Amino acid sequence: MHAYRSHTCAQLTKDNVGDTVRLSGWVHRIRDHGGVLFIDLRDHYGITQVIADADSPAFADLEKVRSEWCIRVDGNVLARDESLVNPNLPTGAIEVFARELEVLSAAAELPLMVFGDQEYPEETRLRHRYLDLRREVMQKAMTLRSDVVSSMRKRMWDLNFREFQTPIITASSPEGARDFLVPSRLHPGKFYALPQAPQQFKQLIMVSGFDKYFQIAPCFRDEDPRADRSPTDFYQLDLEMSFVEQQDIFDTIAPVLAGVFEEFGEGKNVDAAADWPQISYRDAAKWYGSDKPDLRNPIKMQDCSEHFRGSGFAIFAKLLEQDGTEVRAIPAPTGGGRKFCDRMNKFAQGEGLPGMGYIFWRDKTADSVAQELGITVKEAQAKMKAGEVEVGMEAAGPLAKNIGPERTEAIRQQLGLTVGDAAFFLGGKPKAFEKIAGRARDVIGEELGLTDKNRFAFAWIVDFPIYEQDEETGKIDFEHNPFSMPQGGAEALEGNPLDVLGYQYDLACNGYELLSGAIRNHKPEIMFKAFEIAGYGKDEVEKRFGALVNAFQYGAPPHGGCAAGIDRIVMLLADQQNIREVVMFPMNQRAEDLMMNAPSDPMSDQMMELGLRVIPQD
Amino acid sequence: MHAYRSHTCAQLTKDNVGDTVRLSGWVHRIRDHGGVLFIDLRDHYGITQVIADADSPAFADLEKVRSEWCIRVDGNVLARDESLVNPNLPTGAIEVFARELEVLSAAAELPLMVFGDQEYPEETRLRHRYLDLRREVMQKAMTLRSDVVSSMRKRMWDLNFREFQTPIITASSPEGARDFLVPSRLHPGKFYALPQAPQQFKQLIMVSGFDKYFQIAPCFRDEDPRADRSPTDFYQLDLEMSFVEQQDIFDTIAPVLAGVFEEFGEGKNVDAAADWPQISYRDAAKWYGSDKPDLRNPIKMQDCSEHFRGSGFAIFAKLLEQDGTEVRAIPAPTGGGRKFCDRMNKFAQGEGLPGMGYIFWRDKTADSVAQELGITVKEAQAKMKAGEVEVGMEAAGPLAKNIGPERTEAIRQQLGLTVGDAAFFLGGKPKAFEKIAGRARDVIGEELGLTDKNRFAFAWIVDFPIYEQDEETGKIDFEHNPFSMPQGGAEALEGNPLDVLGYQYDLACNGYELLSGAIRNHKPEIMFKAFEIAGYGKDEVEKRFGALVNAFQYGAPPHGGCAAGIDRIVMLLADQQNIREVVMFPMNQRAEDLMMNAPSDPMSDQMMELGLRVIPQD
Repeated sequence: MHAYRSHTCAQLTKDNVGDTVRLSGWVHRIRDHGGVLFIDLRDHYGITQVIADADSPAFADLEKVRSEWCIRVDGNVLARDESLVNPNLPTGAIEVFARELEVLSAAAELPLMVFGDQEYPEETRLRHRYLDLRREVMQKAMTLRSDVVSSMRKRMWDLNFREFQTPIITASSPEGARDFLVPSRLHPGKFYALPQAPQQFKQLIMVSGFDKYFQIAPCFRDEDPRADRSPTDFYQLDLEMSFVEQQDIFDTIAPVLAGVFEEFGEGKNVDAAADWPQISYRDAAKWYGSDKPDLRNPIKMQDCSEHFRGSGFAIFAKLLEQDGTEVRAIPAPTGGGRKFCDRMNKFAQGEGLPGMGYIFWRDKTADSVAQELGITVKEAQAKMKAGEVEVGMEAAGPLAKNIGPERTEAIRQQLGLTVGDAAFFLGGKPKAFEKIAGRARDVIGEELGLTDKNRFAFAWIVDFPIYEQDEETGKIDFEHNPFSMPQGGAEALEGNPLDVLGYQYDLACNGYELLSGAIRNHKPEIMFKAFEIAGYGKDEVEKRFGALVNAFQYGAPPHGGCAAGIDRIVMLLADQQNIREVVMFPMNQRAEDLMMNAPSDPMSDQMMELGLRVIPQD
Repeated sequence: MHAYRSHTCAQLTKDNVGDTVRLSGWVHRIRDHGGVLFIDLRDHYGITQVIADADSPAFADLEKVRSEWCIRVDGNVLARDESLVNPNLPTGAIEVFARELEVLSAAAELPLMVFGDQEYPEETRLRHRYLDLRREVMQKAMTLRSDVVSSMRKRMWDLNFREFQTPIITASSPEGARDFLVPSRLHPGKFYALPQAPQQFKQLIMVSGFDKYFQIAPCFRDEDPRADRSPTDFYQLDLEMSFVEQQDIFDTIAPVLAGVFEEFGEGKNVDAAADWPQISYRDAAKWYGSDKPDLRNPIKMQDCSEHFRGSGFAIFAKLLEQDGTEVRAIPAPTGGGRKFCDRMNKFAQGEGLPGMGYIFWRDKTADSVAQELGITVKEAQAKMKAGEVEVGMEAAGPLAKNIGPERTEAIRQQLGLTVGDAAFFLGGKPKAFEKIAGRARDVIGEELGLTDKNRFAFAWIVDFPIYEQDEETGKIDFEHNPFSMPQGGAEALEGNPLDVLGYQYDLACNGYELLSGAIRNHKPEIMFKAFEIAGYGKDEVEKRFGALVNAFQYGAPPHGGCAAGIDRIVMLLADQQNIREVVMFPMNQRAEDLMMNAPSDPMSDQMMELGLRVIPQD
């Protein structure tokens, strides 16, 4: 018999009754029923119930074991009494009567329990990650992550992509975030950098003639702490293709991601890849107030400026006299009640706006009928009961009063709303309110139960502008990264830079940015021109992107690609909000590894070898 | 039609004759046959011949294109004349008559040619790697590497292993080599390190209850330059299993590697995994003079001390009077000739030995017969011709004379040699000559054509000693790494440390170490004891291996694993001696990336943020 086990702790079934078996694992839970010990023995695969009583030669020793001891048990498989069968456990039909015990490794007093659902401070969990990871939810999350990555690889291989590893110790990649530096010992005073992304390398792979590349790529960014990202590194499904246009990239990656979500989405509905809408960056802002809209939420905002221009609602009417302003409506089906509308108004105030105007539609009240007909409310009620007045709908809220019934009705018709619904209104320069409008849309969808929790909803966001303007300095800079091909090529760069759109795209899923990509600018002359507009001289471009610029001199193919965030995808699938729940050994938010004790003081001879001195901090 | 191609450059066959097609790729070669242009158009997949003459509207433009321009061609598929069909090319039956040309990207004057087999200095190749990689041999090498890694992954998945990524920005891992350090910005003056291997993490994954782990793992070591290794990083197929013994690891990984070699070995014979011998470290030294013996070479060395003890060969006889000395024979079947023996003797001298004694066996010469019978050589020749003397074999060489025929014959019989064979002898303390003996064995096998070049020959090397003694200081230290379980457990550590063997093993293939591994020491008390013997106090162990030592307090499972060198495996399969031939973007031997310009000077604000100052170098 094998030294440690004849079966895993998930294997034994009724078919094994009578067998002599050997199991190894951890003591999950012990119950002492007066002379009979019940031990849940756990390994990676499952749990098997081990029992012993005074008849067992191992009884005395088994009485001593404690939670999380690692033990080996030899024994016989017994059928459980019919009434004790546990149908939720693969091994629930049997138990193992222990005859021999070997303690493989005892456990000291536990800083956190593996059994049960007790919550522990994150510091405890990270310091003793090896115990935290034994918990079922963590075993599942890590397994999920591994399986998602494997599935991605298989799907990419099936599409004839090959995975190529790109350097990790390399040159600074000026992509916006901070590099991690690595001092060179052979060249003291000089530094390598860890790649923020394999962007330049994958483009060089295309210039090298490889046609289709992918990589499950570690990316390193020295980021300031934020709950939903790692302060040091993250993983991307990175891909690049030659001789392609934007639609080719979509047609390639969409089925891969849809497939992964279907495979691991636990039955949630996944939008079919072919149906993912393409929404321009500008429309996304207008309709959803976000460049990563949550399309599980059916609400689509609309421009209602015309209804307020010159209306009796002075705030909006006045505002609309300024150039570049707009009044936008957030329709809120089923939101037609004063309480809800007031709550949303407060939400807007919490976000720093003076408030959100609203209208809601309801069945006409007796109050209104009374006022309309100049009778008492009681009389109105009587008439309504008797069917003597037509009880239609009415629009409520101060806004409706101010703009009058005709404009109100026109709004209702434009938005397609009816009794029981509401609409909220935000006015001003879109840039100033769009983000808040987007958040309001999320909250409204959420509160009204409009957002379909049982769905993964995808949308391509396309036509990103290449440039943006700093509002304070007026300086033009790249909106995303400088590698994208401008739509219209060199000619497009002759006009207003802010009008130039790029072959650049994101994929949004349930309100998150899952993927980002572009068709690259592979023509050196367009590249230099594009950089010039953002204020980078030829020298600087050659210094910062030397490898790419050089490579493009020698016959670069048209190429493009994208990178999908793996941590984010796994978080979505695992329904987690914290990246540390889907990473095996994560840093804490102060970028410390509490288990490994990193970062730590260097040894002085290391500093010497590297030609570095640590400047004493105040 | 697609913007860039209807087919790749490897797709068109006779079936496409008459089709209108669109191809994109690089101009591989251009031949101008007076009014007819032949262009080999190349992409990642293959080459298609494009032709044009004055009838083509694209002719004038096509005359201008040069090697490595990236172009798109529209045209018609024509059948080649029967006599011009190229059966070596998948597209050899057709050519494409060009009607339209688009230059996707022109190329400047080339620093290296893609077409042809011209050799270029490594510096040129690395600086313009994107051109170097376009060459067929490099496309194949990179494809091979990618496919080998994919195959490993598939094989590991099939064995129910899961891949888990371990941290890259982490703590110093004191495993013998130098760490690369990464300064922390959030904790100025403190440093992370890049992992030399995921050793501690994979053990922690086992303590976390995951049972089976693997990873295609990047390993970072700040190494001094050497031709056959990267000065910065390399990749391993890293694996670890819980509840296993040494043989379980062998049974798991051997079929994986055998499978990979069979799949990519291009028909070379691969020793069946079940037949890989297990040779103890000490026997490997004795028999092959190496802990990574090349078993394609059938030569097995033997102890011949007894035949020289008290013999007339004074050098060996005297030497054997000292304790711990030995005379070892390298049998050299078919090596029986004075020229060859002298050359091998010179080889030994070149390696710093006084020489190698030798004996070789040949048919008796007339000279010998004359001497034996006291007649002239002529008379001897006559007698031999007439069959009047029995013409047997004789041993030649000064050694044979010195020790006399009986001992010589005993040696021959022990070594199983015959006419035409030779044997070489080295004497002294084995440690002093074993390595040279091993190299001599390699050279002999090579020169005599004994080494089977058409084979991948594997051997497990087992029973490594846990400790070694520094010859100068007498200090006891770990021979490999400190994580291995000593055979015999705690008890074994009570005796002479140098006698303690570990459950530690290597896999040798064709003279290279392909893999290294161990059953780990999972018991804290044995671990502390093992460290104590090597002079590490409890405090130091806790400081250097804190995470592991802590984790082992909480029920660690017995576990073990190994790591196989991927770069080495690909080098063997690609029949390359230089790691830079199987890495996409390698460093040069000075640890510089000439293409990316790394390492480079940091920016002063980066230094400031990190709290570091560069010490000016002399």
